[in-house]
Amino acid sequence: MIIGKVTGSVVATRKNEKLIGSKFLIIEPVRTMQNGEEGDRFVAVDVIGAGIGDIVMVARGSAARLACDRQDAPCDAAVVGIIDDGTILEK
Amino acid sequence: MIIGKVTGSVVATRKNEKLIGSKFLIIEPVRTMQNGEEGDRFVAVDVIGAGIGDIVMVARGSAARLACDRQDAPCDAAVVGIIDDGTILEK
Amino acid sequence: MIIGKVTGSVVATRKNEKLIGSKFLIIEPVRTMQNGEEGDRFVAVDVIGAGIGDIVMVARGSAARLACDRQDAPCDAAVVGIIDDGTILEK
Amino acid sequence: MIIGKVTGSVVATRKNEKLIGSKFLIIEPVRTMQNGEEGDRFVAVDVIGAGIGDIVMVARGSAARLACDRQDAPCDAAVVGIIDDGTILEK
Amino acid sequence: MIIGKVTGSVVATRKNEKLIGSKFLIIEPVRTMQNGEEGDRFVAVDVIGAGIGDIVMVARGSAARLACDRQDAPCDAAVVGIIDDGTILEK
Repeated sequence: MIIGKVTGSVVATRKNEKLIGSKFLIIEPVRTMQNGEEGDRFVAVDVIGAGIGDIVMVARGSAARLACDRQDAPCDAAVVGIIDDGTILEK
Repeated sequence: MIIGKVTGSVVATRKNEKLIGSKFLIIEPVRTMQNGEEGDRFVAVDVIGAGIGDIVMVARGSAARLACDRQDAPCDAAVVGIIDDGTILEK
Repeated sequence: MIIGKVTGSVVATRKNEKLIGSKFLIIEPVRTMQNGEEGDRFVAVDVIGAGIGDIVMVARGSAARLACDRQDAPCDAAVVGIIDDGTILEK
Repeated sequence: MIIGKVTGSVVATRKNEKLIGSKFLIIEPVRTMQNGEEGDRFVAVDVIGAGIGDIVMVARGSAARLACDRQDAPCDAAVVGIIDDGTILEK
Repeated sequence: MIIGKVTGSVVATRKNEKLIGSKFLIIEPVRTMQNGEEGDRFVAVDVIGAGIGDIVMVARGSAARLACDRQDAPCDAAVVGIIDDGTILEK
């Protein structure tokens, strides 16, 4: 899973019907813990209640559908966990 | 999902029969909202009515087939939502 | 789908039996229409009759198998359309 | 599979219920054996007992779910092997 | 499929049980035929008998499992063909 920071959200009135009711968050990948270098932003569906500023784990590909409300949703990225503050341990 | 801008379209007379009738849009990923840096263009199938200039969400991989007319279409990218103007909120 | 140019072909006498009879083309992604910048080459199976010099759409991932003769072929890239000359419209 | 080094771990109290009980390791891809150049870190589920400092093989995409405890877990990366010391043979 | 060169092998005594008996080769992608530029190395399962120095086609993602002995193996890359010497034709 990618480690990313929730930096925003988007609204899409016109969308695939299987995505109606989904919450779309903008995720900014955290490539390197130390220097905070940023990767390419993307949109992930969230069903676990992440908010702006949270550091999250995001599953991509077919795994993402298993974390959406509907498993036939055309979704390729979903938040699967909110990383607890101070638990990123690296040696 | 990737956030991209619809920048054009393509026509392919000779194509896989399961793609007949599909509308093919050229998508340019919007990697960073602020600086407008552009990523690699690709083609996505659209069934929700996106037009040139629209900022859209594009699902890739197996998720894309769930957003095509035929779920056995050999399609790896599909427009799944048109992002409303002014709703990209980032902090 | 990726937009690419067919630049060559390869022969593999020793291969997975589910790929026997497949035609293998070398595809060079066309990342940007304007400057002709080139991406990383890869091999795609072709069943629609593309030839060297053609600009094609290539599906990757699980979608590619849907464009092969055998849907259990271990194939992750397949030509799904030949783009008509002069139809790449961009604004 | 990617070759990576286990460099840390993360805790996510709030997560998808199908990931409860999973162990999350931070993996740093080893792009080139010789120069030790580092790639983008990501999180992988581990069920085979890898520890910090181990050089591991990580499967990504749908393959990762086959290496998790639950095959419906929204997991896109999993440790599938610990590479024995001194067995990376390259010519 | 990616075109790569077999540059080595790895041994993993401790691994997912569905990978027991698999042969793991190190693959170095050949990004550009002309200049020999190298991409990121990775590990692929081989069941067709490739050896060090061979130029091979490697399938990735779900396609790779179709080229393994066990189709429930957590494998995301597999050698699917050995490219015959001198058959990479490019114009």
